[in-house]
Amino acid sequence: MGSAPQLDDIEAAAARIAGYIHRTPVYTSRQLDALCTASVHFKCENLQKVGAFKARGASNAVLSLSDEAAARGVATHSSGNHGAALAMAAARRCIPAHIVMPANAPAVKKAAVEGYGAFIIECEPTQAAREATLAQVVAETGAAFVHPYDDERVIAGQGTVALELLEQVPGLDVVVVPVGGGGLLAGVATAIKAMKPGVEVVAAEPVGADDAFRSFGLGERQPQPNPQTIADGLRTALGERNFPIIQRCVDTIVTVEEESIVKAMRLQWTRLKSLVEPSGAVSFAALLEHPERFRDRRVGVVISGGNVDLDHLPW
Amino acid sequence: MGSAPQLDDIEAAAARIAGYIHRTPVYTSRQLDALCTASVHFKCENLQKVGAFKARGASNAVLSLSDEAAARGVATHSSGNHGAALAMAAARRCIPAHIVMPANAPAVKKAAVEGYGAFIIECEPTQAAREATLAQVVAETGAAFVHPYDDERVIAGQGTVALELLEQVPGLDVVVVPVGGGGLLAGVATAIKAMKPGVEVVAAEPVGADDAFRSFGLGERQPQPNPQTIADGLRTALGERNFPIIQRCVDTIVTVEEESIVKAMRLQWTRLKSLVEPSGAVSFAALLEHPERFRDRRVGVVISGGNVDLDHLPW
Repeated sequence: MGSAPQLDDIEAAAARIAGYIHRTPVYTSRQLDALCTASVHFKCENLQKVGAFKARGASNAVLSLSDEAAARGVATHSSGNHGAALAMAAARRCIPAHIVMPANAPAVKKAAVEGYGAFIIECEPTQAAREATLAQVVAETGAAFVHPYDDERVIAGQGTVALELLEQVPGLDVVVVPVGGGGLLAGVATAIKAMKPGVEVVAAEPVGADDAFRSFGLGERQPQPNPQTIADGLRTALGERNFPIIQRCVDTIVTVEEESIVKAMRLQWTRLKSLVEPSGAVSFAALLEHPERFRDRRVGVVISGGNVDLDHLPW
Repeated sequence: MGSAPQLDDIEAAAARIAGYIHRTPVYTSRQLDALCTASVHFKCENLQKVGAFKARGASNAVLSLSDEAAARGVATHSSGNHGAALAMAAARRCIPAHIVMPANAPAVKKAAVEGYGAFIIECEPTQAAREATLAQVVAETGAAFVHPYDDERVIAGQGTVALELLEQVPGLDVVVVPVGGGGLLAGVATAIKAMKPGVEVVAAEPVGADDAFRSFGLGERQPQPNPQTIADGLRTALGERNFPIIQRCVDTIVTVEEESIVKAMRLQWTRLKSLVEPSGAVSFAALLEHPERFRDRRVGVVISGGNVDLDHLPW
């Protein structure tokens, strides 16, 4: 791992992972356009393999390993989607995957990881416990650690979302991306500012897990002490490698209330007929909560994932 | 209205409604293929305008009216999706629509009809009450009655689903279609037997609303006295015009249990990330309940609609 990924790293990632991932569709809805008074284009990464954009970064990381390193397997800690993505990519390369997961991760996410034949190692739901358990797994197996977001290969992989979106929807004014650890945001923002610097990049974050918002405003990475949000994929702390990229390439970070996330999710379910997980609805929540910012503009909204536990819906 | 629609009526409908409807995508899932030991292709009419295939038949009927007849408006009775579809098509042609709906219709379906600016007239949830109320509306307004399924223009419109599916998925062995009143089934079966007579047409019906199954077996249209199923779109009685077409063009009708419908719906939600309503899941339920019939075959499964009341999910 070296310096921050550039456009050519993202283009190389796109070529590398093409056979591993879906080129996801872009959905539109006249009714949602009318509601927002904007032209809204939803990039459906909930229809990506494993149900989330994480398939991109994980595949790029797994395919970037030498044969010798790959043979020892890969390992990570993940609240879910990255774990499933790494498990999927490892299974495709026929190498073992060891996934450290918090004991309270949604059942649907654990089942997905197990379905790909990976080993699950449970831990307490804290960042410290995840990292300690992961270090132990890596020491015991020699597996290559693939961080969920604080990793250049992962950032470059997630950036391929933007390559597709810019090609699928010409003339975008602004792209809205959820931010948790910042892998998707850093990758997408890098690609957009390299290809179409005039396109505004807006990040959206739950108000109860707003470390990226605070870090961006203060110019220094802030801790995420006790995140409280239904957007379980965004409870993570902003990554060390991700923050300077975000500072350089992102125009604004806005926060959204929990009720906006639930409202956005329901609207996307009923109007797009598409399952969106709470974290995936945070970008559209930004349009609902800050409409003036997007009015009469051509907006790309990244739906990051669709892995919802149907027995625990937030309404 | 004249004799049973033929392939050229369906092709004419396709040309007529092209600008009014979506060409819906076909989804696949490796995991569902593995589960069914079959190659399963889901025709996603839940992503159709108004969230159901009904947009096709209603649009064809509205566009088939003379200007003089159209000016007096259209009217129908509908448990929901046909009402919304007729309202949508009427709004596009700038003519009034009068929709008779049972008072217990799902809130989401009433809201959809109202959203298109149609007049809703509520009635008791019986076939007799629907028809009496509708007759009164037609007498008062002079509107043209467009039956939800017992209408050649509607049957021809629904048949356009099959034109697309056969083009999108070459080499199908069998197509599975839900049956309620029989508009979708009659139209799809007509098109398939005219274009690809070797493709088997299987209808799927809830065991608690099995008048089509009984009628098909006995060779005579049977009543649907007290339908009991969560598949609210399939509680209607088989149509007079539809039955002989179904007798001629359908190979088999199978019934499915309620628990299979719920299981199918959940699998489609979690694996396809796509909202399917209970009626729309009945076709996939047939694969789950009668796997031997579909094993190792190339199967088209019509998902008829996706209008679900998120506050009343069946689990």
